Amino acid sequence: MKQIKNIKLTIQYDGTDFKGWQLQKKGERTVQDEIEKTLTSIFKRPTKIIGSGRTDAGVHAVGQVANFKTASKMTPLQIKKALNSLLPNDISIIESIEVNNKFHSQFDSKTKTYQYSILNRDSHDPNTRRHCLFYKHKLNLRLMRTAAEHLIGKHDFKHFMATDPYLKRKNISKDTVRKITAISISKKKDVILIEVTANGFLYKMVRNIVGFLLKVGSKTVEPITAKEILNEKSTKFINETAKAHGLKLLSVKY
Amino acid sequence: MKQIKNIKLTIQYDGTDFKGWQLQKKGERTVQDEIEKTLTSIFKRPTKIIGSGRTDAGVHAVGQVANFKTASKMTPLQIKKALNSLLPNDISIIESIEVNNKFHSQFDSKTKTYQYSILNRDSHDPNTRRHCLFYKHKLNLRLMRTAAEHLIGKHDFKHFMATDPYLKRKNISKDTVRKITAISISKKKDVILIEVTANGFLYKMVRNIVGFLLKVGSKTVEPITAKEILNEKSTKFINETAKAHGLKLLSVKY
Repeated sequence: MKQIKNIKLTIQYDGTDFKGWQLQKKGERTVQDEIEKTLTSIFKRPTKIIGSGRTDAGVHAVGQVANFKTASKMTPLQIKKALNSLLPNDISIIESIEVNNKFHSQFDSKTKTYQYSILNRDSHDPNTRRHCLFYKHKLNLRLMRTAAEHLIGKHDFKHFMATDPYLKRKNISKDTVRKITAISISKKKDVILIEVTANGFLYKMVRNIVGFLLKVGSKTVEPITAKEILNEKSTKFINETAKAHGLKLLSVKY
Repeated sequence: MKQIKNIKLTIQYDGTDFKGWQLQKKGERTVQDEIEKTLTSIFKRPTKIIGSGRTDAGVHAVGQVANFKTASKMTPLQIKKALNSLLPNDISIIESIEVNNKFHSQFDSKTKTYQYSILNRDSHDPNTRRHCLFYKHKLNLRLMRTAAEHLIGKHDFKHFMATDPYLKRKNISKDTVRKITAISISKKKDVILIEVTANGFLYKMVRNIVGFLLKVGSKTVEPITAKEILNEKSTKFINETAKAHGLKLLSVKY
């Protein structure tokens, strides 16, 4: 009997030309599909991978995780090299290791960290335009940090969630309680980085949080509104989803 | 009589889709041409700009400088805003100020600093692939720094120069002595940055220096070869021009 190996991949991609991690509509280009096609051609048999979770169209990754099972005799390093030589240049496999047969990228993930980049000055930057939101109005970081404090902890984030077409199609209703363990807001020269770590994220949750924090930073809403939204006293300010290209999946912890 | 103003622009561009700063062949897309076309349409009269120097096809800029004269009544800030609203998104004007009428971007420049970025790991990075050279073989920074030391100072860099089609066409022979005032080689995670400051650069000089340093770092040649090349004892190792996309013009000092 052939021995089955469970391989864990750490993946980087430039989300610009993808319709996200996972297939939504037939014929759309997705990261998962590119990797599965390539593995299928390497192993000469259909190979499916499990991602830690979906990323939206246009969102990038520097540490996405996926796993798959194979009976191939290739070592994890040989698989990594074969993938990198065959994958399109907007995907890169930075690590490939053999893991316990029970490891499941999605169900075993403990926390994920996303990073959102904002260029906050009066002219755009051509060299970072694919990975950084250009935002002209001066942002007050102190107010943004105060608002972010209210979001940390275990809350029902349903008002920070967009309707998920995938769940809607499959008629799945979802538990909308998540635990945010950290939000850091830092600035280096003209670039503001917002990093959010949680045990899981609802559909477009990070981008809605960033959209909300941009309103706080530009003094359109008060930081305390964060608390009101969580307590369902006010939902009127959740209508701004920050653009996808500023967002990166930084890491997945197990 | 109309008052003539001299405007100094600081310019950023993503060199990926340009055939460099200045026109080589009719019909090619250049940064200078895009800016001149836009100024001409803003002022409704032909407007020429003077750049601090040419950058090659594919080379980026975070601090290119140019100047032009105009009789327009627009303030420098209004000109900046008008340019940024009309220019393609791979060019950005980050500063526009009025300067002394005698200021000349090219002739008055004292030093220029270029930065070359190298991703030194075993897999490429999709998110920086347009601005960073992917180099697999492990580089020895100590050896590279020793070689760089030999290049600092006033030397005849003719062996680090490529034949310049522009000068050749115009039949200009050029003084090939330049003074490098600093070369710094630093590393942050997997990215090596090489910064070179000089009073001026010959055609493809930075990219030839980087190509040479890559050979030193990968132990193909000895650091002392740098000295031999400058002393014309050995020229055989100057045949590797590092790719354009890793290079950025950082700043021009006056």
